[in-house]
Amino acid sequence: MKIAVDALGGDHAPHEIIAGTLEAARTLPQDEFLLVGDRASLESVLGPEPPPNVSVREADGVISMTEDPAAALRARPRSSVSVAAQTVRDGEADAFFSAGNTGATVAAALLRVGRVKGCRRPGIATVLPFTSPVLLVDAGATVHCRPHDLLNFAILGSVFARKYFGLKDARVGLINVGEEPGKGNDLTKQSHQLLREQAGISFVGNVEGRDVGTGAADVLVTDGFTGNVVLKTAEGVAREVLQMVRTAMTGGALDKLAAARLRPRLVEVRDQVDPENYGGSFLLGVRGSVVIGHGDSRARGVRNALIGISKTGAGLPEELETALSGVATPVGDVN
Amino acid sequence: MKIAVDALGGDHAPHEIIAGTLEAARTLPQDEFLLVGDRASLESVLGPEPPPNVSVREADGVISMTEDPAAALRARPRSSVSVAAQTVRDGEADAFFSAGNTGATVAAALLRVGRVKGCRRPGIATVLPFTSPVLLVDAGATVHCRPHDLLNFAILGSVFARKYFGLKDARVGLINVGEEPGKGNDLTKQSHQLLREQAGISFVGNVEGRDVGTGAADVLVTDGFTGNVVLKTAEGVAREVLQMVRTAMTGGALDKLAAARLRPRLVEVRDQVDPENYGGSFLLGVRGSVVIGHGDSRARGVRNALIGISKTGAGLPEELETALSGVATPVGDVN
Repeated sequence: MKIAVDALGGDHAPHEIIAGTLEAARTLPQDEFLLVGDRASLESVLGPEPPPNVSVREADGVISMTEDPAAALRARPRSSVSVAAQTVRDGEADAFFSAGNTGATVAAALLRVGRVKGCRRPGIATVLPFTSPVLLVDAGATVHCRPHDLLNFAILGSVFARKYFGLKDARVGLINVGEEPGKGNDLTKQSHQLLREQAGISFVGNVEGRDVGTGAADVLVTDGFTGNVVLKTAEGVAREVLQMVRTAMTGGALDKLAAARLRPRLVEVRDQVDPENYGGSFLLGVRGSVVIGHGDSRARGVRNALIGISKTGAGLPEELETALSGVATPVGDVN
Repeated sequence: MKIAVDALGGDHAPHEIIAGTLEAARTLPQDEFLLVGDRASLESVLGPEPPPNVSVREADGVISMTEDPAAALRARPRSSVSVAAQTVRDGEADAFFSAGNTGATVAAALLRVGRVKGCRRPGIATVLPFTSPVLLVDAGATVHCRPHDLLNFAILGSVFARKYFGLKDARVGLINVGEEPGKGNDLTKQSHQLLREQAGISFVGNVEGRDVGTGAADVLVTDGFTGNVVLKTAEGVAREVLQMVRTAMTGGALDKLAAARLRPRLVEVRDQVDPENYGGSFLLGVRGSVVIGHGDSRARGVRNALIGISKTGAGLPEELETALSGVATPVGDVN
């Protein structure tokens, strides 16, 4: 598999991005990695003897975190994220990764790579890293969704979760405010109906926020607004609760020895819920694997994201397209 | 203050409800408590000498968790939640509490007690119990909201949070998918504008899910769909992370003594994030204090909810109405 990496995107680019890519390249000698950025500075970080499966692809500058994605892409087609997307469009790479401006990554994927047939709107698939990892789709790509979009997310998420988690079957739940089919807003009521009638997915019905992480489903489907709020609430609360535990354990009356002895256990849990375990989110529904890294990605996150891409394989977009081909386009849906 | 308590609603009614009410009655000798239910069985639980500030109000049966709220209320106007609401309507009580069917509690409040002037739709106010407690409005009363509803929630939440948390000023944040004013869906974009222009509230702008519990705001405003998902995700993730910590600390290689020593600290944290600390959610926007207890409320939750009601005082609905009177009704808003 060939994977392009935007070496200039992210708070800790290029050093951490390159370091993570080098780690992945050593772990995955059968894959090839294209580091996209200005050759001179990348080569100075890479050193004289990079692994044989790492090469550099020239690009001119980066789209910053604060720029308007669409305008910046138009103005600077040679920027690193744009060139990374072009390598996928041109068949030189199967996938690209960027930890830069998320909007620019999504826009580059849509404008340069394009959607798979049958997918009206893409969804961001993110793993929530609890005891039972669960795939959340959409975590923020499509803020306004129609029921048919949620059906697409369910199909895309099912195919992806089977490959990514190694499941025979992926159970799909719809995030809602109650378990009964009649609960929720118009979007969830109509989506529930569509999901229940769709062949080829294992729909387990509505799932409430309290079941995020309890293993009630392998895939949680929702609109991009709700999904983004769920993802960030889950990350924030996990961090907050661990902080409360840490604070409680360093209290005055405490046996410091016991706390010191148990601290590594707490670190294990912190590492388990760390978003860097997965390193990024897949943009599902485009004709290539596109992975959005966290803006603050370090080498470990980049390495894990690239390993995740390799695991899902080069054929993912075709599999997603095949799965979507079984779905009727809704009448009157012209957008 | 006089508080009616639906003694028949909830998974552990009537014993735990009565036990919690008795605890509150002893803690708050200046307040009066009306236990609503069938007199014979309540009196057998109460025993021969209940505190002087506890009395029984006759009602006939309970609306179960699975019944359709509106239909059940119509069919059985003498059910416990309905009678509890009537005591508020008739001025015999200032507030009522029920841990029964949530929909029935909301419906009884709206149909029997009615809304305060200027409030089109009520919002459920729930405290998220992290290091910096924050008030979430709406946690699930109004699934379909318009921008004006979110403005109302902000005003109601500000008044309530000042009283409940004892703040001079309550900072209001709008839950959204990004901090910039232009982010989000139509509802959040328009609501952001309204909130920014409204005098009398301290609007701090958009707040992301990751800031739930970090003290970025005292009041988090959102529609009832998103709010319910946020609340349940936060509760579920807090429970899940604590379970992960507990599991990690009972691992094989561990010094059991250290774990035993630190277990009370973990229990402290668990108790701190326990929803029973607040015991229930306030339904804001009705002409009385109405508190919705958790279905699985135990005595501790009931006691804490009743203490919370007493703390906000009998004048709350009038204060809410006064605050809302400063808001222009949107043109064309006839509902």
